[in-house]
Amino acid sequence: MSRIKRSHLNRERLLDEGVAILSTQGYHGTGLKQILDTVNIPKGSFYNYFESKDDYGAEVIKHYTDRVVALCDACLETPGLDGLAALEKYVDAFIEKTRSTNFREGCLLGNLGAEICDAGESCLKALRQGLARVQERFERALARAQQEGVARADMDAETMAELLLNAWEGAVMRMRVEKSLKPLEDIRELLLKGYFRA
Amino acid sequence: MSRIKRSHLNRERLLDEGVAILSTQGYHGTGLKQILDTVNIPKGSFYNYFESKDDYGAEVIKHYTDRVVALCDACLETPGLDGLAALEKYVDAFIEKTRSTNFREGCLLGNLGAEICDAGESCLKALRQGLARVQERFERALARAQQEGVARADMDAETMAELLLNAWEGAVMRMRVEKSLKPLEDIRELLLKGYFRA
Repeated sequence: MSRIKRSHLNRERLLDEGVAILSTQGYHGTGLKQILDTVNIPKGSFYNYFESKDDYGAEVIKHYTDRVVALCDACLETPGLDGLAALEKYVDAFIEKTRSTNFREGCLLGNLGAEICDAGESCLKALRQGLARVQERFERALARAQQEGVARADMDAETMAELLLNAWEGAVMRMRVEKSLKPLEDIRELLLKGYFRA
Repeated sequence: MSRIKRSHLNRERLLDEGVAILSTQGYHGTGLKQILDTVNIPKGSFYNYFESKDDYGAEVIKHYTDRVVALCDACLETPGLDGLAALEKYVDAFIEKTRSTNFREGCLLGNLGAEICDAGESCLKALRQGLARVQERFERALARAQQEGVARADMDAETMAELLLNAWEGAVMRMRVEKSLKPLEDIRELLLKGYFRA
C-alpha cells in the first residue's frame, strides 16, 4: 500500500472511531490517547493527520454530518414516499440505530452542541454548519410535502424544519437520559403525523 | 459563625458555583480544582462536603432544578395569567437570563443530559428526576390552560408537556450554538401561541 493511501486510511479510521467515541463520551470526556489506542496509531503521529483536538473534533463533526445527510437523501429519494413519509423513514432508521447501540450514541451534533459552547471555534463552526445542513434536508422534504398537499401550507417549510430539528435534538437527549424510545416516537406522532399534516 | 453554619455555607457556595461553571463548561470539561479555587475552599476538604464528583454533580443538578421549579411556580402563581401565559412568562424569563449571560449557560439539565450518558449513576438519576420535575410543572400549567379553555383539549396535557420540554431543550442547545434567541422565541410562537392553542 502506498504511503499516501495508508495515510488516508488512517485518517478515515480516526474519523470513524471519533464519531463512535465522541457520540458516547462527549468531547471533554474523550482523550485523544483512547482514540489512537483503539485504532492502533501511535500518539506522536496524531499531528500528521490533524492540527489540534479542535481541528479533529471539527472533522469528526463533518464526517458524522456527511453520514446523516446521506441517510436523509436516501430517505428522500426512496420511490413511493411523499415528503413526510420520507422524514418518518429517517426517524425510523434513527430509532433502529438507537436500539442497536442501546441508547448510547444519540446525535453527535446535539450531544456536542449542548456540551461545548466554549470549545474551539472550528468545532463550533462545524456544529453550526452540520445543523444547518441537516435542517436544509428537512426543509427540502417539508417543502416537497407541501407541494404534494400532505403538509400544512400555512407555515413555511423553513420554520417547520427548524422546529423539527430542534425538537428532535431535545428528544434525542431525553431518549438517552431515559433510555426510552418514546421521545423519538412522539416526534414522529406529534409533529410528522400531527402538527405538520395538511 | 458556628462550624456547622460555615460548613453549610461552603456547601451552598460550592453548589451555586457548580451550577454556573457546569452550565458553561460541561461535566467533563470542569475540574473540581477550578470550582474549589473559585470559592476559596482547599482541595483536601471537598470530601467533607461531597462523596465524589458524581455525588457533587447530582447535588448541583438538584440545586439547579430547585431554582427552575421555583421560577416555574412563580410564573404559575402570577395573578391574571392563564396557564399558557404563565408558560410564556417562564420562556421570557429564560430568554432574559440567556441575554444576560451572553448565551453561555443554557439549561444545565439539557447540557448535561446530552453530555453524560456514561457518567455516574447519581448524576443520571438526578437528571431524570430533574427533567421529570420540570415536565410536571409544564403539565400542571397546560392542564390548567385546558380547564381555562385556552389550550387544545384533543391532546393530553402530559403529551404536550413532554413535547414542550424536549423541544425546549433542543432549542436551548441550538440557541447556544447559534448565539441566537430565535430558537427559543420560535418555541413560544409555534407551540405556546400555535400548536397548543384551543
